[in-house]
Amino acid sequence: MAKVARNRPRLLLNCDMGESFGAWRMGLDEQVMPLVDLANIACGFHASDPMTMTHTVLLARHAGTTIGAHPGYPDLTGFGRRSMQCHPQEIVSMMQYQIGALAGIARAHGVKVSYVKPHGALYNDMMKDHDILRAVLEGVTRYDPSLPLMLMATADNRPVQAVAAEFGAQLMFEAFADRAYDANGFLISRGVPGAVYEDEARILGQTLQLAETGMVRALDGTRVRLEADTLCVHGDNAESVRAVQHIRTELNRLYGNAG
Amino acid sequence: MAKVARNRPRLLLNCDMGESFGAWRMGLDEQVMPLVDLANIACGFHASDPMTMTHTVLLARHAGTTIGAHPGYPDLTGFGRRSMQCHPQEIVSMMQYQIGALAGIARAHGVKVSYVKPHGALYNDMMKDHDILRAVLEGVTRYDPSLPLMLMATADNRPVQAVAAEFGAQLMFEAFADRAYDANGFLISRGVPGAVYEDEARILGQTLQLAETGMVRALDGTRVRLEADTLCVHGDNAESVRAVQHIRTELNRLYGNAG
Amino acid sequence: MAKVARNRPRLLLNCDMGESFGAWRMGLDEQVMPLVDLANIACGFHASDPMTMTHTVLLARHAGTTIGAHPGYPDLTGFGRRSMQCHPQEIVSMMQYQIGALAGIARAHGVKVSYVKPHGALYNDMMKDHDILRAVLEGVTRYDPSLPLMLMATADNRPVQAVAAEFGAQLMFEAFADRAYDANGFLISRGVPGAVYEDEARILGQTLQLAETGMVRALDGTRVRLEADTLCVHGDNAESVRAVQHIRTELNRLYGNAG
Amino acid sequence: MAKVARNRPRLLLNCDMGESFGAWRMGLDEQVMPLVDLANIACGFHASDPMTMTHTVLLARHAGTTIGAHPGYPDLTGFGRRSMQCHPQEIVSMMQYQIGALAGIARAHGVKVSYVKPHGALYNDMMKDHDILRAVLEGVTRYDPSLPLMLMATADNRPVQAVAAEFGAQLMFEAFADRAYDANGFLISRGVPGAVYEDEARILGQTLQLAETGMVRALDGTRVRLEADTLCVHGDNAESVRAVQHIRTELNRLYGNAG
Repeated sequence: MAKVARNRPRLLLNCDMGESFGAWRMGLDEQVMPLVDLANIACGFHASDPMTMTHTVLLARHAGTTIGAHPGYPDLTGFGRRSMQCHPQEIVSMMQYQIGALAGIARAHGVKVSYVKPHGALYNDMMKDHDILRAVLEGVTRYDPSLPLMLMATADNRPVQAVAAEFGAQLMFEAFADRAYDANGFLISRGVPGAVYEDEARILGQTLQLAETGMVRALDGTRVRLEADTLCVHGDNAESVRAVQHIRTELNRLYGNAG
Repeated sequence: MAKVARNRPRLLLNCDMGESFGAWRMGLDEQVMPLVDLANIACGFHASDPMTMTHTVLLARHAGTTIGAHPGYPDLTGFGRRSMQCHPQEIVSMMQYQIGALAGIARAHGVKVSYVKPHGALYNDMMKDHDILRAVLEGVTRYDPSLPLMLMATADNRPVQAVAAEFGAQLMFEAFADRAYDANGFLISRGVPGAVYEDEARILGQTLQLAETGMVRALDGTRVRLEADTLCVHGDNAESVRAVQHIRTELNRLYGNAG
Repeated sequence: MAKVARNRPRLLLNCDMGESFGAWRMGLDEQVMPLVDLANIACGFHASDPMTMTHTVLLARHAGTTIGAHPGYPDLTGFGRRSMQCHPQEIVSMMQYQIGALAGIARAHGVKVSYVKPHGALYNDMMKDHDILRAVLEGVTRYDPSLPLMLMATADNRPVQAVAAEFGAQLMFEAFADRAYDANGFLISRGVPGAVYEDEARILGQTLQLAETGMVRALDGTRVRLEADTLCVHGDNAESVRAVQHIRTELNRLYGNAG
Repeated sequence: MAKVARNRPRLLLNCDMGESFGAWRMGLDEQVMPLVDLANIACGFHASDPMTMTHTVLLARHAGTTIGAHPGYPDLTGFGRRSMQCHPQEIVSMMQYQIGALAGIARAHGVKVSYVKPHGALYNDMMKDHDILRAVLEGVTRYDPSLPLMLMATADNRPVQAVAAEFGAQLMFEAFADRAYDANGFLISRGVPGAVYEDEARILGQTLQLAETGMVRALDGTRVRLEADTLCVHGDNAESVRAVQHIRTELNRLYGNAG
């Protein structure tokens, strides 16, 4: 704890949730919900449905977890993981539709949507293409200019901050504990050996390094600064839930919580 | 005009809109929008999509038309016209999802959703089955207790008013200008000869009778009281738009508007 | 084995398979496929997708399992479990679409669709309503009059046989090992205590009784004749797979297979 | 007529049909069907549904028009017009699913699917990317190696013919009467002025030039050879149907039909 810079904000944990669809289950939401700070809830386009969203909002309310909208491309079969060449105005509208849909269910249960994190291919496309980022930002800020958009921290957040400034948008930056970074703070592609950390000690190490110093060690050994507000974790299976529990415990120890 | 009871409220015109889907057009919304008071906007489950909803909200804003959510069963192929045995809790959630989705798009354009009118089979099921009506009412009132639900006026609105009172819900009642009623103020089934009025004089006659006296003449000749706040009109084709124009003109004359 | 009537045909095992959808897994198809004779493969309307169907056809081909089409109502969110008021001509067309879709994928891998078993609410509706049964039969027989339709065995199969005769249709009858029957050979509704057998000894008992004698003992103690060609089993989880293994072992012993 | 090279095969007319969806109408199929030789029928992924497909197959049967499958990406909202990054194996499976689905409905009415023409973005992607073309060819030829694939004629058909030869696939090439070509026989992009011919005389001129000489005059004035088996026409509205009628009349005159 002594190691924590006095002025470093707490690193929040975020997790994709509500990714079941109809009769199909996905994710151990019941177990992960109490462990994380931010629940990214799917909105029915790439996963989820009104009943699943209601269930997930109630889980979050019970655990005291903040919720965010997790909109995606309209592609259930592909789980929103494949890029679709949507017109920017369509992206604006589909963002507002999905945020509103979750907000409608949340409002009915006394819960507020507090941020927006695009899903899958939409997230990747937004990080690669500033016109898509602009459509996402227009979608969010016209709906509510005070609603932050969560996107990926890199070594230099200024380009996306400049685009966000055009819309007066609030941003949140996320980092990954289980992914290797390159020297520019971009994720190493999953296909590359060593890109995904399986070793829990390594995952915990990257977590603590980020929380304490705001840095990660890139795959090539360089140290990279990542200004991240939150760390993305996963609740897909028992093993990943266990990793989240350990991350939670370490962060609580760091921040002096009993946990 | 002298015939108008001083205390009768203005009969508003409502019309289903935003029923296009992707590349498929339906309804002459541009032409009908300025003629009606209330636009029931489809929410993507039985018709419409985020772009169509955005376009329809902007049309309504430009015309100064009040908008309402027009949620339906999740059935694009069947246009929400066939009953689906949904669990009441699913109906609650799908109402809130759809109202919220439209509200999300509307909010982005400075417009408010002012009422809710279920579509097609959901509307019919709600009128026939009080458990479904309860699910609809729970959906609406938990979202916003001040948001009125539009349903069908009959000779005796008290049974549905009693159910609505359980939820503290606001109601709006609608009547039809082009449909024949039975002595209890229920619509004669479409299959019955004479059930649907094609003759414009007859449609205008029923409109004015409702506006002036709050009564309609049933198919069997009896006079039936219908406490209706609004009249449902259609903008499917040039002919129906022309009928709406005449209805609008007659109502404007009745209420002393220049039109 | 001495107990088996010489002229009783072998009781085949059938199981619903290919019920995953996109990224969502359902059913332990890899484990169950080698244990059953007939794989009812979902066709994309209530579950499955082209990739899942291809994978399932290849599993069946590898195991030497006969495949059948398992068409359902167009309702992914509801898994085809809720009734939809479809026009009979729509049922005819949706049957042919789904059978053809599976046949297209099967043909590409040298496999034939050998029977049709409707899914969920469509299955239930067909058993309750002869007009829906006629639509199903018209769908199947116009596609291929030699393709058998699988439906539920009851104490008196003659009424459905009479309807099938109108279409010159072939039928297969199925029974259930884990469900209690009433004195007319209808399934006891799931809500009733004792309707679903959890006890494996009981499940095996009913299986052997059916295989050896063509009878089951109803919940009220009466013995009911069920002329069944096949027994429906489930591969949802490890426990149900284990039950199928035991059923397979018992039937192999009965029929003198080494297994 | 004297001008027609003795050995030039008849130029067939093909048209996209069955593009309605549920309650939404698209295309004047009833009017166009008797005018064309080949009906490309949508298969439910980007447009159409089982009822619409049945209706379209019956129209074709009545008119004696040959039918082909017109499969597309799974994207009703986008009408299959936007590219989706599908895995090649998914394209293989979705081709077979859609061809089979149409074949299932066609077989029930005594009609055969005689060729395959991919739709919209899938068509464009296949022309641009040989890996996607290979997936399309694998989909078709594994289903039925004798089933031709229709694709776009360019000045040099050999590259796609070489890919097709890997699969032993049959090809049909199509040209466009209302689109301007560049010197390599590629379509000028719609955005370029003059890319789409509105003038009917020009459309008829290009048609006859193709039919008589197998050449078109490119936008830059060069003459380009296009080895096309068929000409793509449109039945979207009254005007395009009229153009098809004139094309049909001219071709009939050329080929010596009474018409």
